[in-house]
Amino acid sequence: IKKIGVLTSGGDAPGMNAAIRAVTRSAIAHNLEVIGIHHGFKGLIENEFTPLTSSGVSGILQNGGTILKTARSREFLTEEGRAKAYQNLVNAGINAVVVIGGDGSFTGALVFSKEFDIPFVGIPATIDNDIFGTDYTIGYDTALNTVVQAVDKIKDTAASHGRVFFIEVMGREAGLLALNGGIAVGAEVILIPESNTEHQAFDRFISKGYKRKKTSGIVVIAEGEEMGGALKLAKKAEQENPDLDIRVSILGHMQRGGNPTAQDRVAATKMGVAAVDAILDDQKSIMVGLRYGKIVHVPFNKAVKLNHSIDQDLLEIQRLITI
Amino acid sequence: IKKIGVLTSGGDAPGMNAAIRAVTRSAIAHNLEVIGIHHGFKGLIENEFTPLTSSGVSGILQNGGTILKTARSREFLTEEGRAKAYQNLVNAGINAVVVIGGDGSFTGALVFSKEFDIPFVGIPATIDNDIFGTDYTIGYDTALNTVVQAVDKIKDTAASHGRVFFIEVMGREAGLLALNGGIAVGAEVILIPESNTEHQAFDRFISKGYKRKKTSGIVVIAEGEEMGGALKLAKKAEQENPDLDIRVSILGHMQRGGNPTAQDRVAATKMGVAAVDAILDDQKSIMVGLRYGKIVHVPFNKAVKLNHSIDQDLLEIQRLITI
Amino acid sequence: IKKIGVLTSGGDAPGMNAAIRAVTRSAIAHNLEVIGIHHGFKGLIENEFTPLTSSGVSGILQNGGTILKTARSREFLTEEGRAKAYQNLVNAGINAVVVIGGDGSFTGALVFSKEFDIPFVGIPATIDNDIFGTDYTIGYDTALNTVVQAVDKIKDTAASHGRVFFIEVMGREAGLLALNGGIAVGAEVILIPESNTEHQAFDRFISKGYKRKKTSGIVVIAEGEEMGGALKLAKKAEQENPDLDIRVSILGHMQRGGNPTAQDRVAATKMGVAAVDAILDDQKSIMVGLRYGKIVHVPFNKAVKLNHSIDQDLLEIQRLITI
Amino acid sequence: IKKIGVLTSGGDAPGMNAAIRAVTRSAIAHNLEVIGIHHGFKGLIENEFTPLTSSGVSGILQNGGTILKTARSREFLTEEGRAKAYQNLVNAGINAVVVIGGDGSFTGALVFSKEFDIPFVGIPATIDNDIFGTDYTIGYDTALNTVVQAVDKIKDTAASHGRVFFIEVMGREAGLLALNGGIAVGAEVILIPESNTEHQAFDRFISKGYKRKKTSGIVVIAEGEEMGGALKLAKKAEQENPDLDIRVSILGHMQRGGNPTAQDRVAATKMGVAAVDAILDDQKSIMVGLRYGKIVHVPFNKAVKLNHSIDQDLLEIQRLITI
Repeated sequence: IKKIGVLTSGGDAPGMNAAIRAVTRSAIAHNLEVIGIHHGFKGLIENEFTPLTSSGVSGILQNGGTILKTARSREFLTEEGRAKAYQNLVNAGINAVVVIGGDGSFTGALVFSKEFDIPFVGIPATIDNDIFGTDYTIGYDTALNTVVQAVDKIKDTAASHGRVFFIEVMGREAGLLALNGGIAVGAEVILIPESNTEHQAFDRFISKGYKRKKTSGIVVIAEGEEMGGALKLAKKAEQENPDLDIRVSILGHMQRGGNPTAQDRVAATKMGVAAVDAILDDQKSIMVGLRYGKIVHVPFNKAVKLNHSIDQDLLEIQRLITI
Repeated sequence: IKKIGVLTSGGDAPGMNAAIRAVTRSAIAHNLEVIGIHHGFKGLIENEFTPLTSSGVSGILQNGGTILKTARSREFLTEEGRAKAYQNLVNAGINAVVVIGGDGSFTGALVFSKEFDIPFVGIPATIDNDIFGTDYTIGYDTALNTVVQAVDKIKDTAASHGRVFFIEVMGREAGLLALNGGIAVGAEVILIPESNTEHQAFDRFISKGYKRKKTSGIVVIAEGEEMGGALKLAKKAEQENPDLDIRVSILGHMQRGGNPTAQDRVAATKMGVAAVDAILDDQKSIMVGLRYGKIVHVPFNKAVKLNHSIDQDLLEIQRLITI
Repeated sequence: IKKIGVLTSGGDAPGMNAAIRAVTRSAIAHNLEVIGIHHGFKGLIENEFTPLTSSGVSGILQNGGTILKTARSREFLTEEGRAKAYQNLVNAGINAVVVIGGDGSFTGALVFSKEFDIPFVGIPATIDNDIFGTDYTIGYDTALNTVVQAVDKIKDTAASHGRVFFIEVMGREAGLLALNGGIAVGAEVILIPESNTEHQAFDRFISKGYKRKKTSGIVVIAEGEEMGGALKLAKKAEQENPDLDIRVSILGHMQRGGNPTAQDRVAATKMGVAAVDAILDDQKSIMVGLRYGKIVHVPFNKAVKLNHSIDQDLLEIQRLITI
Repeated sequence: IKKIGVLTSGGDAPGMNAAIRAVTRSAIAHNLEVIGIHHGFKGLIENEFTPLTSSGVSGILQNGGTILKTARSREFLTEEGRAKAYQNLVNAGINAVVVIGGDGSFTGALVFSKEFDIPFVGIPATIDNDIFGTDYTIGYDTALNTVVQAVDKIKDTAASHGRVFFIEVMGREAGLLALNGGIAVGAEVILIPESNTEHQAFDRFISKGYKRKKTSGIVVIAEGEEMGGALKLAKKAEQENPDLDIRVSILGHMQRGGNPTAQDRVAATKMGVAAVDAILDDQKSIMVGLRYGKIVHVPFNKAVKLNHSIDQDLLEIQRLITI
């Protein structure tokens, strides 16, 4: 191994830059050359390669987004696309690639690795924290704090006006951001795809109203909630209980950006270093992850599965606390 | 004058608590008693009066929202409602009232003051900064920084993905938040109700696309923009130029909350003290305002008019800079 | 068990209010009465007891500090003091007490519990995260992010002026805040009490200077570092290498305050609920902790010991990355 | 005029990058070439010139510090130094220079302009806001909010422990940051160089103690205060009243950095555009400033004087409110 590539793929997540920096610097410390591949798998096919230096990744640790950009690539789903990508890698003399992204990106890398002899190692980065095999994915803590800070602001105005806010947070099929965010802001009801026990709590909250004890309320809704999004649920609630003064806020793409928190920077740094170590150890088709604070290796074919388990205790706690 | 009331009315704005604190403390320093009236004019009618003490307003300076809550009151629009309010004020021995709110609140106070002999003095508080006669309304700077911090986050993800974001900011008929927020984040196009010269810039941006020079872009749209809101404009733009990867973000009620900035706290403190001074000077039916950094008195009937002028230079600057 | 007390003791930490809220609400949900004891053990002796209600702990989740205040008590170190405290608890009908604090507080509670039959259960709260038996203590993540955000600002000015900053962070004998904070900001050197291997890196950095590759630098120093504090080390460094333009910043008490992060709020909520569960389960003289994300019970006599182990991998990583 | 230079000089201030961007883009919009001069006057002498492009200043608007760096230059104080600088400017074909900095920088530029025929135009940037002729200098609002956010955190711990904090803020001979910061955080006493009437309030606060009415307190001290800095005053106060539990916090260089606030970005953008306009209008040896929200031109020889006037009303307000 003399030269490695690094790319970011899928949705961006705060901390990706910290991971790029750690990969680059630790590779250089091990006397490897590093090539930054722009626009994910698309750049692999279109040959968007630039050398990365130690000073070139200076000052990016604290920035959201990804200096390598990210994109979707339909061509990489085709055999020709992947063959082109392979040829580019060979031409550039790249012996291994670090992929920073989510489960979809690892699936892509796995397909490629079965066809060609260039090893890929993954670093999990998605604000949803929904990848099997790792306790943590880069970006989750920053997104969680963005949710909390936004809802803190909304609570000011909810309390001042005696309003109920339906707040939709990101997370696709995963309710982790909504659940922990809801606990952290003291939400009255939290609706997540992984549990339908909260549907009753929601109905009770709407029908009996918040007026008995509280003058305002926060309902946090995961975007993948099966009953529907915040707008649909708000309409339903208004019909059932016209006394409620309901407003909707969809937090949106703001949740994907922002300067990474301390936790995301540290996790990204650990994983970036671990990914280079794994390559030097001749590993391939694995994602580095964190379990109980320690680095683990998870085969791509396991890492791609979604982790649908949710901490049921947290739901219990929420019910107990919101009285 | 021995006893004054203070209430917050209309939409809440960060810094209202700082104003309540300043009114209360400076009144007490002048040996006045202070009564907090909850839920605005509604509380005036429903007799929601509580004494405010110096220590009672301790620790609220830095909090968003309003400890006195706010509400809309249809009853105050009726003669009977106002008569009830007057009776409550007389019964409580209140000689004057400070109203913290927007132009609508001052109109209400003006009608009341023409019928009854209890003077009202206003403090302008609205995130829109759209009240004639004052350079500043409490809450504007905090809302502006909330917009800027949210769009900074969105820019991370816009740049990483090569996307165009249509971002809708508050301000009703006023484009000040959108204009200054757009300048502060380096928006490619800013659409505000006060100017239609930007419509061409918008069309040009959409038709020619951002692909020539830039890989991503931010379009800031005031909610009162006549061409329509962010969702409508995004749909239109997607039809005209399917190459653009457009996303929409409506910043929403988050803009009304949050810990007030230094400027909002200082302005609220100055105005709170000035309102009590005005009452002691036998002023009535005036709003205290800030012009060129100095306190001014503006009659309610002038303060109610919206200020539709916008700084044309800023629009020029935006065009020049966004190249 | 019909009535429990709750107090905060030792240095304050962000998230203590979230813990108070969780203890109070979950106790009430289990039909217990809750008494807030002000000023820690001092208030126990001086009978500073106030009932806590569900609505009384509303709106404190997001605030730093502790509504119950905290204080040191020499009297509690005496037998008479503790006897007085016991009598007050008996008079108030309190059957168990939740102590939110650090190892010193648990030691005090342990002594008391050996003499009297009122059980104490502890919740670990200190920004130092240095208590044996738990992976986490409330306040650590907030303090860590405060450090990171402050140093991010300092890096702006360090880079602009080509300066080296010596930054002293809290943590007493524990270097966790300094180590993780230093990694998260990309510090050139990190000095912590648990390791002297960095002393060489420090000397090398000072003697060879930063001028070779970088134009500015950050040295993070834990307050318990044996070589001395930031001021002393800066003086030494200036003598050794007058070419360096060194500035010192002691982050100070700011690190103890601020709105808790999402992680601190969630951890505090989990632990608060767990402490009440433990009391209902007839537990005594134990601290609830978090190990691998799950609640554990740690006897006070184990929890009092400091945890001096540090993640050596992180030090390795720091050396590798800072090139 | 075909080519202009731009440099930052003196202490850095948040918003300098926004000004560099505005100068560069508006110059290019007027068909001028732009050269970035690194390290202030030092770079002028040492020929550190790099062309600036529109895309080269992309993404810097929101960053603290200055991409052009800043430095002190003794050589520029000599005739030979300035002659060298002139020769470099002539060789590079630069017809005019924009200086972003404080009064010291303008003095330097003035001396140069008297000797050589290359016009200089200044943009005021210093967190102290102490330059005569302009209501605003870039960086002040960001520094003010940094002070306020830091003291907000300290207030949490002050209130929890019943402590008095002596907090030293920047500002050299100017007390504006301390005065407005103190008002915004609700300080009990504010000590600034411009007024000694607060010395009595300080003595009264120390001697009578805060224990009568309040359990904690904040004393904000400007670094230029004639009675001494926070450490010296704290020592004095502890001797006079040993009952007080006093802590000191020196906010330090953190105040110079950080992402600029909305106000700083907008002001920097306006001034950057105005500086280029001034050059195109054949102005020289003037600083562009803001008076009552409008651009003004202030001759360098006037702009160099410090503005020692302080808003006496604010001091009155502080006394009134802190009861």
